[in-house]
Amino acid sequence: MASNLLRQRVRNPELLKKLVKPEDTVPWFKSGQSLGWSGFTGVGYPKLVPTAIADHVEKNNLQGQMKFDLFVGASAGAETEDRWAQLDMISRRTPHQVGKNIAKGINENRIKFFDKHLSMFPQDLVYGFYQKDTPGGGKLDWAMVEATAITEDGHIVPGASVGATPELMHVADKVIIEVNTALPSFEGLHDITEMDLPPHRKPLNVTGVKDRIGTTAIPIDPSKIAAIIEVNRGDATGPNAPADADSNAIAGHLIEFFEHEVKMGRMPANLLPLQSGIGNVANAIIGGLGASKFEHMTVWTEVLQDTFLDLFDSGSLDFATATSIRFSPEGFERFYANWDKYAHKILLRNQAISNSPEIIRRLGVIAMNTPVEVDIYAHANSTNVNGSKMLNGLGGSADFLRNAKYSIMHTPSARKTKTDKTGISTIVPMATHVDQTEHDLDVIVTEQGLADLRGLSPKERVPIIIKNCAHPDYRAQLEEYFKYAEFAATKWGAGHEPQSLKHVFKMHTNMMENGTMKLKDWGF
Amino acid sequence: MASNLLRQRVRNPELLKKLVKPEDTVPWFKSGQSLGWSGFTGVGYPKLVPTAIADHVEKNNLQGQMKFDLFVGASAGAETEDRWAQLDMISRRTPHQVGKNIAKGINENRIKFFDKHLSMFPQDLVYGFYQKDTPGGGKLDWAMVEATAITEDGHIVPGASVGATPELMHVADKVIIEVNTALPSFEGLHDITEMDLPPHRKPLNVTGVKDRIGTTAIPIDPSKIAAIIEVNRGDATGPNAPADADSNAIAGHLIEFFEHEVKMGRMPANLLPLQSGIGNVANAIIGGLGASKFEHMTVWTEVLQDTFLDLFDSGSLDFATATSIRFSPEGFERFYANWDKYAHKILLRNQAISNSPEIIRRLGVIAMNTPVEVDIYAHANSTNVNGSKMLNGLGGSADFLRNAKYSIMHTPSARKTKTDKTGISTIVPMATHVDQTEHDLDVIVTEQGLADLRGLSPKERVPIIIKNCAHPDYRAQLEEYFKYAEFAATKWGAGHEPQSLKHVFKMHTNMMENGTMKLKDWGF
Repeated sequence: MASNLLRQRVRNPELLKKLVKPEDTVPWFKSGQSLGWSGFTGVGYPKLVPTAIADHVEKNNLQGQMKFDLFVGASAGAETEDRWAQLDMISRRTPHQVGKNIAKGINENRIKFFDKHLSMFPQDLVYGFYQKDTPGGGKLDWAMVEATAITEDGHIVPGASVGATPELMHVADKVIIEVNTALPSFEGLHDITEMDLPPHRKPLNVTGVKDRIGTTAIPIDPSKIAAIIEVNRGDATGPNAPADADSNAIAGHLIEFFEHEVKMGRMPANLLPLQSGIGNVANAIIGGLGASKFEHMTVWTEVLQDTFLDLFDSGSLDFATATSIRFSPEGFERFYANWDKYAHKILLRNQAISNSPEIIRRLGVIAMNTPVEVDIYAHANSTNVNGSKMLNGLGGSADFLRNAKYSIMHTPSARKTKTDKTGISTIVPMATHVDQTEHDLDVIVTEQGLADLRGLSPKERVPIIIKNCAHPDYRAQLEEYFKYAEFAATKWGAGHEPQSLKHVFKMHTNMMENGTMKLKDWGF
Repeated sequence: MASNLLRQRVRNPELLKKLVKPEDTVPWFKSGQSLGWSGFTGVGYPKLVPTAIADHVEKNNLQGQMKFDLFVGASAGAETEDRWAQLDMISRRTPHQVGKNIAKGINENRIKFFDKHLSMFPQDLVYGFYQKDTPGGGKLDWAMVEATAITEDGHIVPGASVGATPELMHVADKVIIEVNTALPSFEGLHDITEMDLPPHRKPLNVTGVKDRIGTTAIPIDPSKIAAIIEVNRGDATGPNAPADADSNAIAGHLIEFFEHEVKMGRMPANLLPLQSGIGNVANAIIGGLGASKFEHMTVWTEVLQDTFLDLFDSGSLDFATATSIRFSPEGFERFYANWDKYAHKILLRNQAISNSPEIIRRLGVIAMNTPVEVDIYAHANSTNVNGSKMLNGLGGSADFLRNAKYSIMHTPSARKTKTDKTGISTIVPMATHVDQTEHDLDVIVTEQGLADLRGLSPKERVPIIIKNCAHPDYRAQLEEYFKYAEFAATKWGAGHEPQSLKHVFKMHTNMMENGTMKLKDWGF
């Protein structure tokens, strides 16, 4: 029954006996169960069992009648998670998600979602904080995990992500392993750690990006493995967002800033470990660094995208570690075709390690992240549009921005609405949802310029953020607000961080009503 | 010239030659200089030199003409810091302060203040992030430091606080040491660490509250010491705030919660290291724990107050570590009179260690803190009334609440205004300044009850916070807001964390205009 390829990958013969077809597992799942999936940024997720259950729901018109609590390290993938949302199969979801239908379900009250620091999610899971009032008392009914090999001891070798897979397997009663034979075995690319609990925790002994502190596979009690499935298709990723003029301008400002910091003796010539996200700005920055004079750079981040391959090729990147590799289909082809060139320069870790405050602070990481909006005092919204509408979730933004040596937020200064090319200013009087506080951010940068806020009082930050970062269409309007707020707040002896609570969200309400943040007047 | 007492304390004879009178140092100080002071929570601060400079300013009517940038680990003390503020001698201040005049100066635009995580302040100081654009490039002109002894090697033994003293001395060009002979020598009570810089940092090898990783005195290049001063008066502290009915009710709810967590197997029977602040709620909690059945407790906190002595006496506390001991005058007398009983159970560390995210997370600390206000989705304001008016600053609240295993905010449910006994609700629709995010808090507790928010989506939190925590005078009003916000936000597909931006601060603006948060109507 097992293919030759599968026999090569599953080196524990007892486990091979548990091979079943995806559809055989469907009767095991009952509405109301709690499930953990492997996966992070849409790679390394289980494919066939979630698809089989979705097919079952669709075929039998069970939409809304088979619903699960779903726990994944971060986002799983459109083909499973978002399809489940579309079929109304998700009652609860944490800590992060990406997908049109799942966001819709969350914002329309069908899916109970909360976002959580990605470093904390696996920890709180193992603490038993989630599902604590269910009969299982903090346990999950099932974990479904993608593997690219299983060792002689029955330990699980993940694929392109580690995420929270080890912890999800730990708290699950039963585990299904999907062994992906369409991918190469990733064995040796991971550094897997088990989570100790207080009061028995030890230091995480990582002092450089290359340091290994764990094992190359996830240990598991074999009796918990209910089934093995063979999968023969890769992760369904899409293309990377290309850099554009704005993102290139942002990258330019940042590289100039890094050069200045090196010159002032505040940073080594090869910089410090870089954290960078997904998206066109991240792409432009990594591209810009490849074209810069910086050499022997290192990366400590959450997720690697295609441009890191270019950075390796240019010879300027020595080593990169993350919890997932989210390449485009072409990127994965390039990676697999040049495995020996890249693999020894990459290490994938648990998200509890990649996002660990302890290590991020120790290494002095340079953290870069994109917000929804930033306010004139340097609080940032990473999650909820107009304070209410969830996009994807917090992710690891606050793990990095709170603990990095350099905490940087980059964003275009304006976004378009249906009727106005610059209808949304990303610089606002007050963030409508605060995920990063003024105490956490050092630098704000837009295509307009860079604001270095270190050592400045709140009122000193305002003119610099407005002048250097705000779109010209909004500068006068923001200055007018600040001038009034300062006058009004100082009058009642509250001039530290002046806000006029009656007007503070007027740009947002105007946008909702009139499609632009440009005001006729403030109405003071 | 040196007293016998001073000769006993200053064991390095070369340094004794630098003995001067406080007034001799006054000509050394020029307006515009940057100064670092020892001190934390109003203990261990330099007394005579700041007083001599203040006397000079007062006598010569130099108010506003001799101004300094002032860096202290946290608050220094009323007799120096607040007097300097009153004499308009402070141009810039970070990262925390306590005092009527200094708060006034900040809110009236005379003092440029910013608050910062107390774990980060010494780090950013050593990074050269503060004062980076001054000619010194991140250096301080002077540090003034209280000591209770100086070793043969010329190393400095602090008094009742460590705070950021080691780092302030490190970045200062010149240092003045005030040796306090009115206090006993604190030698042996401290664990002093030097701050490594990335990329050369090592793990902080603390795995239990008693662990020592440093030295008992602060090393310093003796050529940097400009003068030694003898001081013969203690820290001017006041009495502790006594527990009252509300704070006892809060303590009762919390102890019940701890018992539940132990019963559910999520916490050891002796709990986990406790972090607790200053004030009547903290006093009630520590008092309540002393009367409870918990034994062999430990404390990992920022500051110790009198009630910890009671907890030692009752036999239920094994060990306590902090960065400062802020006892009342009677508490200090009791501590000094029973030195041998208490001293081996107490350790004082740098604030970079006491507040270290790395260690707080590793130990699984139980963090408890008081906010200005908490919102219905569990964001908390720790700093700015109505988003604008600075109280004392962030302190270590976010160091602990972000990283603790149990992140708890406790507050009375209402506060009085001039005209209304319950004119201010501490539970509001949206915090007017966010210092702790919804991603950071596990539990909210008021005298009304406790809301356990772990694992809940934002909309699930709202009814629990309102029902369990809000004052009865505000429950219906908050429910009415939430009902409307949910209706309005869901209408435009934004129902994850419903807010109505037009109404969200109406309780606050009503309070400013009418002296109460009780609304005639919401005006939807």
